[in-house]
Amino acid sequence: MQDQAEQRTDINTLGEFGLIEHLTRQFPLENSASIKGVGDDAAVIDNTGFLTVVSTDMLVEGIHFDLMYSPLKHLGYKSVAVNVSDIYAMNAQPKQITVSIALSNRFSLEALDELYEGIRLACKHYGVDLVGGDTSSSNRGLILSITAIGQGTAEKMVYRNTAKIGDLICISGDLGAAYLGLQILEREKQLFLSNPGIQPDLEAQNYIIGRQLKPEARMDIIEMFEKNQLVPTSMIDISDGLASELFHICTQSGVGAFLEESGIPIHPDTELQAIKFGLDPATCALNGGEDYELLFTINPKDVDKIRFLPDIYIAGEIVEAKDGINLHTKGGNIHALKAQGWRHFEG
Amino acid sequence: MQDQAEQRTDINTLGEFGLIEHLTRQFPLENSASIKGVGDDAAVIDNTGFLTVVSTDMLVEGIHFDLMYSPLKHLGYKSVAVNVSDIYAMNAQPKQITVSIALSNRFSLEALDELYEGIRLACKHYGVDLVGGDTSSSNRGLILSITAIGQGTAEKMVYRNTAKIGDLICISGDLGAAYLGLQILEREKQLFLSNPGIQPDLEAQNYIIGRQLKPEARMDIIEMFEKNQLVPTSMIDISDGLASELFHICTQSGVGAFLEESGIPIHPDTELQAIKFGLDPATCALNGGEDYELLFTINPKDVDKIRFLPDIYIAGEIVEAKDGINLHTKGGNIHALKAQGWRHFEG
Repeated sequence: MQDQAEQRTDINTLGEFGLIEHLTRQFPLENSASIKGVGDDAAVIDNTGFLTVVSTDMLVEGIHFDLMYSPLKHLGYKSVAVNVSDIYAMNAQPKQITVSIALSNRFSLEALDELYEGIRLACKHYGVDLVGGDTSSSNRGLILSITAIGQGTAEKMVYRNTAKIGDLICISGDLGAAYLGLQILEREKQLFLSNPGIQPDLEAQNYIIGRQLKPEARMDIIEMFEKNQLVPTSMIDISDGLASELFHICTQSGVGAFLEESGIPIHPDTELQAIKFGLDPATCALNGGEDYELLFTINPKDVDKIRFLPDIYIAGEIVEAKDGINLHTKGGNIHALKAQGWRHFEG
Repeated sequence: MQDQAEQRTDINTLGEFGLIEHLTRQFPLENSASIKGVGDDAAVIDNTGFLTVVSTDMLVEGIHFDLMYSPLKHLGYKSVAVNVSDIYAMNAQPKQITVSIALSNRFSLEALDELYEGIRLACKHYGVDLVGGDTSSSNRGLILSITAIGQGTAEKMVYRNTAKIGDLICISGDLGAAYLGLQILEREKQLFLSNPGIQPDLEAQNYIIGRQLKPEARMDIIEMFEKNQLVPTSMIDISDGLASELFHICTQSGVGAFLEESGIPIHPDTELQAIKFGLDPATCALNGGEDYELLFTINPKDVDKIRFLPDIYIAGEIVEAKDGINLHTKGGNIHALKAQGWRHFEG
């Protein structure tokens, strides 16, 4: 029962420019390099002596997110985190983002404010400025397109195609949780749709669900590299599942890999939840997506720089291409790994 | 009658990465500054000593374009032109673009190839590299999000908020044609929908329809500025109609404007077609959008640098803010201008 009707301001009352002004006025420019942000034809970024790094992602309602269980604030936060994660995966520092949205009339201004509040919180957390974007209507649903722009130096930039034979394969954190979080949310959605009176049973799975709804990009890992004077030999962020990302590194570097199942970090909550669902935890870690941890390789001479860090897991070694990409299971078998990952086109 | 069925390759057969590879393999990196393009987490751009300029636009089927009369190749070309136009409007040089698309299953690979062929032609024409993007599915329709990145110098960068009292208001080409082109296409679409056997009557309006379907960004005007050592005092590209853009410059610069109707360039075909539709040609030029000409102001001491150029029209003067933004009509009246322009939210 509601005593008061919720406030609902129609987007049309502001006009496009009023809407942009409304949405972006809480984003002061923080970086001295951000010479010009929202309000002109383009954003201007002064980065003399540095490399500019640009990454972009598009998120479509019903494909990449479901507003039945993704609060808009979380969606805003995640959409930024996902993009800056790509910049960190280059060993660079994100500095600016642009945000374009298209949305249908069913979204109120208050809903949009929630979305932008999440974006604002993420900008603050990762130290990036919102410097531009575009806002328009859509016939159906919400579409978000975010571009992140970062800075790095030529000496420290890390690509996917530079892993060398003998390098150690490292992972920055536990995998598979985001995938299982999505399975729980999907299950509860289906139950709710068949019986709207039902209360969601999230099984107190805060950790797993949090990994799905509010992932963090690993800014701290990039800071650790800087502090420990470590430059990985290759790196990628794990958005599509460990197996798929390892395939990218190996294919582009012209090498193979020997991955230890025992070395793949899996959170105890993930392990238990996988078993409840009748799934193999390692399969969830290998093929579940959206964990946004970093997968990187290092020269073995650098191993002392990371060996005792709680956040880093050494999970295998880069080998010759002719030896393939194999998984050494806990059961003592060795079998060829398959890159499955997210396939939005097959959804 | 068709003898052979058209080839139709389902997008799903390629997978996401195969699709990206397929779509982007015809885009060699041309600029030496494009260190890394498609195929890593982010694009890397070396621009030591220069300013980076970034602009982004989102185009949604049914809102910004209609595939019933927008061939995909034209759409691809236009979506790039529209973005680089924003970079030129800063007096900067576009260098790279990223292209993100979401599309439903009704699009075949051949259709996508058409789209990317248009993008490729525009990249070639404007000298920009495609350096990244994202591709995913949508539940309905096609959504394009393009980010353009450019280079410029601090001395030559031109903003919207720096017009000065006494400056001359200049326009780079004729206005209103793109709007009338859209009206013709919309009329023919409605006739076709009510009677699919009918042949479209485009009234040999190649010029007007071309302005709508395949606008060009004014690269040549930026080159002329460079050659003539002219730096405008303010500039904006005309995407929403002259009146709306002039309001942006005046509001942000804290000035007014005195615009001469007789100085607004209108093509003879536009004039005739407006009259056929029972519209005032000047109103089409003032409030019709998508012409992508440049509106700029110059210090009167620079007038000799542009006075005799066929492409430049001087259409008024910047005045004090208290004098407002007025139009001096051909009929001898002076009345306050209204900024109407495109309002996609009111569509």
